[in-house]
Amino acid sequence: MSYTLSYSPLLGPLLADKNVAQLFSAEEDISTILGFEAELANAQEKCGIVPKGVSKAILNAAEILKFDQSEIDGAIARDGVVVPYLVSLLKKAVPSNMAEYVHKSTTSQDAIDTSFMMRAGLALDSVAENLEQIGQQLEVLRKSHGKRALMGRTRMQLALPITVGDRLNSWENNVATTTADISNLDFLLQLSGPVGTYADAKVKELMGKQMGLIAPLRSWQNDRGPMLAIGNACAGLSGALGKIGMDISLMVQNEFAEIKLRGGGGSSAMPHKHNPVKAEVLVSLARYNASLISGLHNAAVHEQERSGAAWTLEWLVMPQMICAAAGSAKLCRELLDSVESIGA
Amino acid sequence: MSYTLSYSPLLGPLLADKNVAQLFSAEEDISTILGFEAELANAQEKCGIVPKGVSKAILNAAEILKFDQSEIDGAIARDGVVVPYLVSLLKKAVPSNMAEYVHKSTTSQDAIDTSFMMRAGLALDSVAENLEQIGQQLEVLRKSHGKRALMGRTRMQLALPITVGDRLNSWENNVATTTADISNLDFLLQLSGPVGTYADAKVKELMGKQMGLIAPLRSWQNDRGPMLAIGNACAGLSGALGKIGMDISLMVQNEFAEIKLRGGGGSSAMPHKHNPVKAEVLVSLARYNASLISGLHNAAVHEQERSGAAWTLEWLVMPQMICAAAGSAKLCRELLDSVESIGA
Amino acid sequence: MSYTLSYSPLLGPLLADKNVAQLFSAEEDISTILGFEAELANAQEKCGIVPKGVSKAILNAAEILKFDQSEIDGAIARDGVVVPYLVSLLKKAVPSNMAEYVHKSTTSQDAIDTSFMMRAGLALDSVAENLEQIGQQLEVLRKSHGKRALMGRTRMQLALPITVGDRLNSWENNVATTTADISNLDFLLQLSGPVGTYADAKVKELMGKQMGLIAPLRSWQNDRGPMLAIGNACAGLSGALGKIGMDISLMVQNEFAEIKLRGGGGSSAMPHKHNPVKAEVLVSLARYNASLISGLHNAAVHEQERSGAAWTLEWLVMPQMICAAAGSAKLCRELLDSVESIGA
Amino acid sequence: MSYTLSYSPLLGPLLADKNVAQLFSAEEDISTILGFEAELANAQEKCGIVPKGVSKAILNAAEILKFDQSEIDGAIARDGVVVPYLVSLLKKAVPSNMAEYVHKSTTSQDAIDTSFMMRAGLALDSVAENLEQIGQQLEVLRKSHGKRALMGRTRMQLALPITVGDRLNSWENNVATTTADISNLDFLLQLSGPVGTYADAKVKELMGKQMGLIAPLRSWQNDRGPMLAIGNACAGLSGALGKIGMDISLMVQNEFAEIKLRGGGGSSAMPHKHNPVKAEVLVSLARYNASLISGLHNAAVHEQERSGAAWTLEWLVMPQMICAAAGSAKLCRELLDSVESIGA
Repeated sequence: MSYTLSYSPLLGPLLADKNVAQLFSAEEDISTILGFEAELANAQEKCGIVPKGVSKAILNAAEILKFDQSEIDGAIARDGVVVPYLVSLLKKAVPSNMAEYVHKSTTSQDAIDTSFMMRAGLALDSVAENLEQIGQQLEVLRKSHGKRALMGRTRMQLALPITVGDRLNSWENNVATTTADISNLDFLLQLSGPVGTYADAKVKELMGKQMGLIAPLRSWQNDRGPMLAIGNACAGLSGALGKIGMDISLMVQNEFAEIKLRGGGGSSAMPHKHNPVKAEVLVSLARYNASLISGLHNAAVHEQERSGAAWTLEWLVMPQMICAAAGSAKLCRELLDSVESIGA
Repeated sequence: MSYTLSYSPLLGPLLADKNVAQLFSAEEDISTILGFEAELANAQEKCGIVPKGVSKAILNAAEILKFDQSEIDGAIARDGVVVPYLVSLLKKAVPSNMAEYVHKSTTSQDAIDTSFMMRAGLALDSVAENLEQIGQQLEVLRKSHGKRALMGRTRMQLALPITVGDRLNSWENNVATTTADISNLDFLLQLSGPVGTYADAKVKELMGKQMGLIAPLRSWQNDRGPMLAIGNACAGLSGALGKIGMDISLMVQNEFAEIKLRGGGGSSAMPHKHNPVKAEVLVSLARYNASLISGLHNAAVHEQERSGAAWTLEWLVMPQMICAAAGSAKLCRELLDSVESIGA
Repeated sequence: MSYTLSYSPLLGPLLADKNVAQLFSAEEDISTILGFEAELANAQEKCGIVPKGVSKAILNAAEILKFDQSEIDGAIARDGVVVPYLVSLLKKAVPSNMAEYVHKSTTSQDAIDTSFMMRAGLALDSVAENLEQIGQQLEVLRKSHGKRALMGRTRMQLALPITVGDRLNSWENNVATTTADISNLDFLLQLSGPVGTYADAKVKELMGKQMGLIAPLRSWQNDRGPMLAIGNACAGLSGALGKIGMDISLMVQNEFAEIKLRGGGGSSAMPHKHNPVKAEVLVSLARYNASLISGLHNAAVHEQERSGAAWTLEWLVMPQMICAAAGSAKLCRELLDSVESIGA
Repeated sequence: MSYTLSYSPLLGPLLADKNVAQLFSAEEDISTILGFEAELANAQEKCGIVPKGVSKAILNAAEILKFDQSEIDGAIARDGVVVPYLVSLLKKAVPSNMAEYVHKSTTSQDAIDTSFMMRAGLALDSVAENLEQIGQQLEVLRKSHGKRALMGRTRMQLALPITVGDRLNSWENNVATTTADISNLDFLLQLSGPVGTYADAKVKELMGKQMGLIAPLRSWQNDRGPMLAIGNACAGLSGALGKIGMDISLMVQNEFAEIKLRGGGGSSAMPHKHNPVKAEVLVSLARYNASLISGLHNAAVHEQERSGAAWTLEWLVMPQMICAAAGSAKLCRELLDSVESIGA
């Protein structure tokens, strides 16, 4: 699963966390898939299932593999997935007596699901760092501005006086809830074979350890709960930070002036304007993920042992959801960095 | 938050769990809101905040309150919420020296959110029972049919031979994942006051205990993570059981005959047909919740201290999502009950 | 297709157009289905396909039919649809020599799709009246307030001065676009038989004329474009009026005071507040329909001759979308009625 | 509005129409925006609003403009949109006495909306060609196989015998409905100025003629009906062709063998398999667009004169929806090309 809108030269600078987006490049996907094949062989070597040296041979081969995009195009258009092509390249590139041990007992979905989980884990680690930083920014703001007066507003109308600290509390609650959801996520090895019945507990355990992934005995090829959990957490994060973005968009309204931001976007027609672009984009990303989550839940209706239609739908949705969440975290951090003062 | 499609004389019998639907009737909502007011007074009495007897007076009043639907209509159309009307009735019904202690320090959202959480907890307890039963049904099927042969199918094509037990495993995995999500849910007291700053820890703790709810110190009036968690779990459940429904719809295709079901729906035009109605409806409910979850995540962008627009959106979505999940669990149980045999 | 949230004693008064909601009651659905059977017999009589008198006999029977809800429950739970039960009642109720001519050459989906289209047409006629009224309200406001000053706002920031008339123009544009979409809708007879091949052009034409529906020769049992068109138009309407609701929610912010509304909702805790409830609910309904439309487009993947899963999903979604659109139109009209002044 | 998933080296070959995807590259977006500025100056020259030669100077400048991606990054991150940066480059590149006439009376949204509409028009022309081709393919299949027998299936169960022609009819109906929707779309010039009040009818008319766009007098900066119409049509198309994909996925099931396809995707683990990849991906794309359409309808709640949050959400959604529709049309055509026989 690779690629996202974050790569666009026009959208990327607006809404992407480049480091996270990079994880969902085709290059990273392919390289992680090849790493999966090497780690699988490594674990199978340790269990005496394949001869010593296969893993090393795969790693060597992976380093020098040349990909022909027109061949990739043809292979994917035909197979619906890049793995058969990569495996055929690997089999040709390793010593010929080792070819039969490449991709042994596994299937495309194992490689692709695991590659996704590896990169999702790294991406959400990076997101968690931004969330922690946001928590600290809010603490700093509370210390400096928390006791200032602010009008509480409900249903967009003046309600009762609160403090800036009270408003910051609500932001912190949102951040804390989503941080907990992100940190509770499990990133799983998929190693279930062509019809979900591969059951070598030892190989799974070894491979999970090597790759830093949880290695369930069971297949999750057609139980997409682990994917939903990640998607739900990403949409939750975008929503929670979208709430902060919406609040700041309202606070920065000229007549309110409840918050002062450094910078702010220019207008091609009105030089006097300072648009709260990052606050607005937080709302856009929240609603974008709120749309995509619907696709992900539809993909849970995953027929029989493995579904082509539902799985491909996940590819379209998941990397984007993670990148939108990562973009939200990065934007929120930058936005809070730009706060000059809150309250009056 | 009340009412769902489950009440329709035509849709209810098809897709509802009547007991769960009943929890989301207007009567239950109002009665739970009145209970909230009594429990609040009770806790405040224990803390010496209101005089002894207020809680009892509210309970007495609640029992004899008469609701005029035309008055309800007018009040809701004006206020957007039923609580101000109910509170005004209560204040008139209790002894006049107690009126000022009714609904003290609280706000409509506290009553409505808590009423929802109370009933969501009961509903999902009932769902959990059905899930446990489904787990047992699958165990029984595994014992009786698990060793039979079945063809594994991937991308809807014949793949490799598996056993019926393997297919049942995948169903159990789906059920286990969603059961864990449901059982991990927190049902929270909301007691945060007009602008989210009510902070009497003792009253919250007492009230939480009395009502069997978790009582966080913090407000979640504008941190809708707890709502999202419930919605995500409900959509996850419908999706997981929708996968079983889809599998059975495919297995029961005439040429496959991989499963035999008792009953099956009749056709108005083709008396020979036996339609796998319950299996189909499981798919419908999965996709229905997959739609609604999008609305719920949009409602997380909850502006300022309390949002009218986002909150009302939750009312439209949440009871339906729970009822769709409950209907899924009930239908799946009935569907599995109707299995005569699996495999060949 | 029947029933909607609009029936809730708590949600109905907030967001429903009662007359439209009534069209989607179970009673109206059943009565329209029975009407379909009578009209079908009527057209078939005229073509000499069934003997004279069948239609009259069906009408007579329909008037005295007694429905036992527990029988309905059982029938729907078994068949997934109410039509087989209704047809069996009709066959018993007409003179026995006519029984074979009841529901001749048709199928449940014909009756249900047509019943939906009949009522959708009536509902959207009523919506169109409200839209016309809204157009007139905006004209009146333009005449009385159009030349007043208002600050144009982009990205929620002060931009350049405009007039109230300019803002009203944007509302009128939204209303005009959605009015055109609603008025361009086609409401179709479905008369396609058990597997979509019923092709008696004369019967179709007669029946269409009798019922005021367009009568295509082709089946649309598994081409759901006509359903999508209605759903798209309803979501478009809620979105267009949601834009007005959002604008008014912002204009009525205390510091802006760009609009003055009569009434406004009370708060259970803050008597001074005047909440712009109707404006907020317009936004809620827009986002609700924006969720449901996703379900409807998923239902377009309608397998083979007729789909149980996709069709049932439509039942869950379509009446609600129409009722949300109708509620939007009614609320918007009431909201505009409550405008005291705009601009300064 | 630029860039889509279609560019991924791994997803593109599976699901993209490369020519359409190319229209949504950043290069094409920028080049079309620059073209907009030149055409605007051209029309304003003809009306005597700007001096002769400005348009030519813009065209000359556009040809030699150098874009520094790091400058683009900074500008977009700050302004939320690329236009101010492009305009500043143009102003520097034209003769200094012409700088004031660049981007006269217009605003970023005019340029971006119009650039989108230009490319959407070209994209959907290309889609329409594929749809026409699909219609012809279905005609050819009808002539060669239409009279063969096929079992009609409803609720995924055998119903009554039909012919292959009957099934093809249903596909043609779907294609005809969506073709009509696509061909009825309007592609509009946006020329409304900073707050939507630009009203020079002559400039609009000239510019519309020059660019082949409909030029309404009114602003649609905050009436997003024209965007919804395109999104609805794209989702409708993906859904209609998704129905064909679903049918073929079912027909090609081994036990059915109702259709024979040339090719078919390979499996990394099961060389005997021939996976109906293109049929499956049609279903994925249908459900993907069914998700995104929800985001688009949410973006219709477009506050005040111009919304940053809602507009940015459109950027995320619209190009993807068009590319998914275009991919569907291309895949469907290829899939039908691969049909060897239908029916028995």
